[in-house]
Amino acid sequence: MIADSTIAVVGLGLMGGSLARAVSARGARVLGYDQNGAHLDHALRDGVVHEALERDLKGMEAADVVVLALPVDATCRTLPVLARRAATARLLMDLASTKRSVVACAESAGVGEQFVGAHPLTGSHRSGWSAGRASLFESARVFLCPTSRTTPAAVLLAEQFWRELHAHTEALDPCDHDEEMAWSSHLPHLMSSALAVTLRDAGIPRSALGPGGRDMTRLAGSSTAMWSAIAADNADAIVQALSAYEAQLRALREAIATRGEEKTRTLLDEGREWFDGEMGGETLTCDHLRRQR
Amino acid sequence: MIADSTIAVVGLGLMGGSLARAVSARGARVLGYDQNGAHLDHALRDGVVHEALERDLKGMEAADVVVLALPVDATCRTLPVLARRAATARLLMDLASTKRSVVACAESAGVGEQFVGAHPLTGSHRSGWSAGRASLFESARVFLCPTSRTTPAAVLLAEQFWRELHAHTEALDPCDHDEEMAWSSHLPHLMSSALAVTLRDAGIPRSALGPGGRDMTRLAGSSTAMWSAIAADNADAIVQALSAYEAQLRALREAIATRGEEKTRTLLDEGREWFDGEMGGETLTCDHLRRQR
Repeated sequence: MIADSTIAVVGLGLMGGSLARAVSARGARVLGYDQNGAHLDHALRDGVVHEALERDLKGMEAADVVVLALPVDATCRTLPVLARRAATARLLMDLASTKRSVVACAESAGVGEQFVGAHPLTGSHRSGWSAGRASLFESARVFLCPTSRTTPAAVLLAEQFWRELHAHTEALDPCDHDEEMAWSSHLPHLMSSALAVTLRDAGIPRSALGPGGRDMTRLAGSSTAMWSAIAADNADAIVQALSAYEAQLRALREAIATRGEEKTRTLLDEGREWFDGEMGGETLTCDHLRRQR
Repeated sequence: MIADSTIAVVGLGLMGGSLARAVSARGARVLGYDQNGAHLDHALRDGVVHEALERDLKGMEAADVVVLALPVDATCRTLPVLARRAATARLLMDLASTKRSVVACAESAGVGEQFVGAHPLTGSHRSGWSAGRASLFESARVFLCPTSRTTPAAVLLAEQFWRELHAHTEALDPCDHDEEMAWSSHLPHLMSSALAVTLRDAGIPRSALGPGGRDMTRLAGSSTAMWSAIAADNADAIVQALSAYEAQLRALREAIATRGEEKTRTLLDEGREWFDGEMGGETLTCDHLRRQR
């Protein structure tokens, strides 16, 4: 479906820029917008975006598919514009990392029937037009969160869209999605930022780190606009995950402080067993998460 | 110097196994030992280790260079054996991740003159003979910590040894080394293990994670024998680093919980600035660390 479509991509950063490249390479006509004029110019010059949308997204009326690739707060602010400008589009999607509020905003904006929230579980700490690449979504898992009103046709179209990009889709309730992401994605990101600030205060530059320390601080290089929006949007679940993590760190610190070597070893062994996949292959559902807690 | 030498490597895991491969490939005669008989057999069968040392390290007498590649506690227990069996060796080294107690043990054991503690800032979360590779030390930074009695000849020999493996050596006081590593290496490792246990308790398998979560949990797959020994050996400095990190996490959690979006953004921005290298290029010394705190 991509080759025959006119696709509007709003936001040409890492995710939107990668999507624009991927659909452009597959023959779509791409309409693009980014509030950063330099990124938009670059995308036009690269021949990836064929036509620029105006600041008020005028021009979007011609799109069959619209994809918002913005931080979650900007996504919610932009959805009412889609109700005016993309009434005839067959599919509206966003790529934000949280889905509950976006799906609610789509319903309030009156675009619930065409809308499918999408969250590709892929990325990089890099941001901006130059960080994108056409292959970003190859083999990636993409969570799809329909609204309560999304038509079966729109869901099928979204599945086909991502299949053509060689991604694997999984339907998920938006609340379940956000709760899971608090643990599996938002917690690790915030941990990395907190480590960065800790090392800064200790006077240690990133260049002094070995491969382990570099991995653990990579995510601190991510877009802070995007991540502060995620933190605000999923605050309750994130606070719960951070609290649980702080309790584990405290237990480990106390074991080390009191020379409880057996306790320390047990905690490390438990982490290693998990790493080795003793839980591998379980289906991740929110019911499952709720059962565990 | 490597090509002309007989080199004994005690411990054929990731670090020792890599070192044995690297010196064997450069023409050294390699004597090897590992308490895991399967690893030792494998190393002999691969033609990397030319002769096995006995369980009491008999046979080491023929070595010009001895390298202990053991967890830090086992390193300290083994040093007195070197005093008996390696009295004529020109250079004794270890590869443990902490150096203060090892250097003290070497002095107590009476091998201080020939001994240079070495810590290559490289590795992998994988362990055992099969995890090793001859190129592990290429371009790696290697901290060298002499004892108070190490002869200049032994230091020069150690520098030459690592130069021949294309590593970059940096001399460092063992106390300074351990204090720095608490922040730059031990803290990130323990953070990763604590995240693994947190995700296990939440019922989330590693296979459910995206690239960010996978990076943040990689170190939890490391050897737990090695890391519990490090935690015990460097407990005070590690507790200090963990406490500082916990304070940062708490500040971030409180900002998110109270919807302090500006505070959240400021913390993330500080981490991002550090990531972007605004502190890059500073010389890392312990005095510097002490000044900061």
